[in-house]
Amino acid sequence: MSMNAKERLVVIGGDAAGMSAASQARRMRGPGELEIVAFERGHFSSFSACGIPYWVSGDVDERDRLIARTPEEHRARDIDLRMRTEVTEIDVAAGRVRARDVDSGAESWTSYDKLVIATGARPIRPGMPGADAPGVHGVQTLDDGQALLDSLTRARGRRAVVVGAGYIGVEMAEALIKRGYEVTVVNRDKEPMSTLDPDMGRLVHRAMEGLGITMVDDAEVTKVLTNDDGRVRAVATEDAEYPADVVVLGIGVRPGTALARAAGLPLGAHGGLLTDRAMRVRGHENIWAGGDCVEVLDLVSGQWRYVPLGTHANKHGQIIGTNAGGGYATFPGVVGTAVSKVCDLEIGRTGLREKDARRVGLQFETVTIESTSRAGYYPGASPMTVKMLAERRTGRLLGVQIVGREGAAKRVDIAAVALTAGLTVEQMTALDLGYAPPFSPVWDPVLVAARKATRKVRGGAP
Amino acid sequence: MSMNAKERLVVIGGDAAGMSAASQARRMRGPGELEIVAFERGHFSSFSACGIPYWVSGDVDERDRLIARTPEEHRARDIDLRMRTEVTEIDVAAGRVRARDVDSGAESWTSYDKLVIATGARPIRPGMPGADAPGVHGVQTLDDGQALLDSLTRARGRRAVVVGAGYIGVEMAEALIKRGYEVTVVNRDKEPMSTLDPDMGRLVHRAMEGLGITMVDDAEVTKVLTNDDGRVRAVATEDAEYPADVVVLGIGVRPGTALARAAGLPLGAHGGLLTDRAMRVRGHENIWAGGDCVEVLDLVSGQWRYVPLGTHANKHGQIIGTNAGGGYATFPGVVGTAVSKVCDLEIGRTGLREKDARRVGLQFETVTIESTSRAGYYPGASPMTVKMLAERRTGRLLGVQIVGREGAAKRVDIAAVALTAGLTVEQMTALDLGYAPPFSPVWDPVLVAARKATRKVRGGAP
Repeated sequence: MSMNAKERLVVIGGDAAGMSAASQARRMRGPGELEIVAFERGHFSSFSACGIPYWVSGDVDERDRLIARTPEEHRARDIDLRMRTEVTEIDVAAGRVRARDVDSGAESWTSYDKLVIATGARPIRPGMPGADAPGVHGVQTLDDGQALLDSLTRARGRRAVVVGAGYIGVEMAEALIKRGYEVTVVNRDKEPMSTLDPDMGRLVHRAMEGLGITMVDDAEVTKVLTNDDGRVRAVATEDAEYPADVVVLGIGVRPGTALARAAGLPLGAHGGLLTDRAMRVRGHENIWAGGDCVEVLDLVSGQWRYVPLGTHANKHGQIIGTNAGGGYATFPGVVGTAVSKVCDLEIGRTGLREKDARRVGLQFETVTIESTSRAGYYPGASPMTVKMLAERRTGRLLGVQIVGREGAAKRVDIAAVALTAGLTVEQMTALDLGYAPPFSPVWDPVLVAARKATRKVRGGAP
Repeated sequence: MSMNAKERLVVIGGDAAGMSAASQARRMRGPGELEIVAFERGHFSSFSACGIPYWVSGDVDERDRLIARTPEEHRARDIDLRMRTEVTEIDVAAGRVRARDVDSGAESWTSYDKLVIATGARPIRPGMPGADAPGVHGVQTLDDGQALLDSLTRARGRRAVVVGAGYIGVEMAEALIKRGYEVTVVNRDKEPMSTLDPDMGRLVHRAMEGLGITMVDDAEVTKVLTNDDGRVRAVATEDAEYPADVVVLGIGVRPGTALARAAGLPLGAHGGLLTDRAMRVRGHENIWAGGDCVEVLDLVSGQWRYVPLGTHANKHGQIIGTNAGGGYATFPGVVGTAVSKVCDLEIGRTGLREKDARRVGLQFETVTIESTSRAGYYPGASPMTVKMLAERRTGRLLGVQIVGREGAAKRVDIAAVALTAGLTVEQMTALDLGYAPPFSPVWDPVLVAARKATRKVRGGAP
C-alpha cells in the first residue's frame, strides 16, 4: 500500500486494453479511492490500429478519427495518463515501475498497489537486407500510418508490394488498390490468408487476382533492393524481383513481453503473458494483463494461443478494470473468430482449421458447400462458400470458414456462438436463423453446411 | 398396409413443408420401397410466397423464378404430384384421403400407410363490406401476386393502401413505393411491426414516414368503398377515408386445419395441429404434420405458438421426410426469429417481447442501446438500435430486437443462437464475434446491449 489509504493503480500501455482497464476501474471507484496512473510511450492513446488500412486507403479522411479517446479526455476522467513515457522495468518485489520520459530521457520510479500490463504487440521485422530502407513500412501505429502516407506522396511510381497475405496484408492490398497502385502481394504460404485452410485460401487467391492484384504465393522475400538514393526499388525472392515504389510489411506481430519476461512473470509457449480467467497474471494477486501481450484460452481446442485482436483487447480491459476496481468479471476465452475484406470480397473464420484440429488430437469431418447471400431470385444474390469442420462421432462443431461477397464475413458469428455453446452440427441444423429473401436463402448457407456435415458425421445417411 | 408390400406415403399440400417431406422421403427410400403421392389444390408447387413482394416490386422479373421446383421436376423424382387436386376429407380410421379434381369435380379415395399434412395457412380476410371488390388483393399465392400485378396495370391512379403493418404489410409497402405508388399503411396496432415492442415499432414508424409512406396507426379499417364500376376507390376507418386505386391486405394468416379438425386430429390453442418432436401428429403413429398448419414449441417461453414461416416449413419437411422414410430426426422448436426490410430499413427480432415474457410469468430487465453498423469512422456506418430483454436474477437472454440499416437485421442471428443455447447476457458479453472496421464497431452492437443488460441485471454495477 502507498503512504495514504488511497490505492494506486498503474497501467502500462495507453491503448485498447490498458485504457479500457483504466476507464472501467475509474467507473468502479472514484478518484478519492483509487489513483490511476497510465504510461504510454507513443504519441497516441486509445487508437484503432485496425482502422489504419482504411485511413491509408482514403476511406477514413483523417488520422484523428481513429482515436477513440485522446489523452486529454482520459485526464478529464481523472486518469493520470503520461504520454511519451516508456516503462523500462517492473520491480515486482517492491511493487513499482521505472518509467523514462522518451524526450528528455529522465527516469523515475512509481509505486503501485495494483498493476495492469497492456504492453501490446511488436511487429515482426524481417532480418533481411534493406528492410529498414525508406519506402518500407509497417502499419502498427498511427505514426507508421502517417509515415506510409507521406511515403506514398513521395513515391515516384505506382507499384506497391505487400509482404504477407494475412489480415493486414489483404487489407493493405485493398488500400493501395484504392489509391491507384498496382499491387503485388508476396506471401510465404501456399495460399493467402493462412488463418483459413488452403482450399479456402485458394478462393481468396483467385478473388484477389480477379481484383487485379498480383498474387505471389509460396515465396519468401530474401531482400529489399534500393536505388542509389537508398530508397526501395524492388523486393527480391529466391526466384524473382518485384519492382516496388513502396513496400508494406504485414507479416504479423509477437507479444510485447520483454518487460514482463525481465520481471520474471509467467509467459506461455507463444511468448505471451499467462493469466487466469480474471485476467490476473498467474501467481500475482495484484497484477493483471490483457490485450496483445497475453495468450488466450482457445475454447475449441482447450489450448492457449496467441490471438492479437482489438476486440479481445477491449474485452480484457473491461474485465481487468472491473476486477482491479474491486468487482468480479472473467474472460472465458476465444473461439478464434476473425473477419476481413478485400474490396467486395469478404472472409470470415472461426474455430479450428484442419491443421489446428489435428494438432490437438481431434478427428473430424469436413464439408464445403456453395450457396448464396440472398434468395437465389433476389437481386444482388452473390455466391458464398462455407466450409465446416465437425468432430467425428460426437458431431461437435469445430470450425467454420466463409468466403464470399456481401453478407459472408459476419455470418461466422452464428458459428462463433455455436462454438461457444458447444453445439453439434446436427443441433445447428435446427437453428432459428433470420430468413427473408433479401437476407438469405430459405436455408441459410450456414445451415446448408450444417446439414451436409450432419450427414457426413452420421456416415452418409441422406 | 396397401395390397402390395410397397408402402404408400400420401402428402397433402404441394408447397414447402409437403414437398420437402416428399423429397426427403424419396432420398431415404427408393420408388421400389415407397410410393409417394402428393396432392396440391393450386396451380403451383414449391414456390416462395416470401418472394411475392419482390416480384410485385419488380426486383424479381418473373413469376417462375419464385418456383423452387416444378411439378414436372417432382415427378421426375418419382413423386406422383397431382396438381389442382384438393383433399376434402381425411379418413383416419380407414387410412385414406378423399381428393377432388378441382376442374372436373371428380372425387376418389386414396389409401395411405403414412400421411403428411402440410395444408399451410389461410389468409385472414376481413369481414367488412367491400373486401372482395376488384382492386383488393391478398398476397398469399402466386395467383394472388399475378392478380395484384394485373390490377396495378389497370389501376387508374397511383394511390395504394396497405392494410396491416406486419412483415407482409411493410414489404408490400416497399414494393408499391418501388412501383411509384403513393403508399398509405393502415394498421390496427399502436405501432407498425407488432412483432416488436411498441418502442421499437415506433422507430419503424418514423423510418417508414421518412421513406415517404403515410403511416396510420391505431386504426381499424371498417369498409372498402367502391366506384360505380365496383372497383375499389377508398378505404374507410372510423375516422377517415383513404383514397385507393389498389388495396393490399396483409393482415395475417391462420392455420389451414379445417381438414384436420374434421378428422378429429389434435389442435392447439392457436388452431394449429399439435405434433411431437418428430413432427408426428400427437397420438397418431403414421401421420406427420408441418409448415404453416402446425403449432411450434417456443424454446424461450416453453409454450406452443403459431409461427407461420417458410424457414420452419422447410425444416419441418426435412424432419418429416427423414422420419417417414424410416430415419430419425427431430425439430426442437423455435426461438421466434424474423427479419424484414422496407427499402434500406432493416428489422430483426428474436425471442420474447415484453408482453410475451409477462404472459408466461417471466420477470425481466430491458435495455436499449444505440450503436453503429460499422466502426464509427468507417464510411457508411449507419445507426442501429438494439433492445435486449434479460430474465431478472438469472440474467438469461430472453429476446433481442434490432432496427437499423445495412447489417442490422441478420445480427439477430447472434441472439437466436444464444437463445437456443440458453446463454445469459453476461455470458454474451464475452462472445467472440467477428470484428473489423467495415463490419462492426470493436464492441458489436449486440455486445454493447449485452453489457448494459448485464449491469442492469446485476443491479446497476458499472
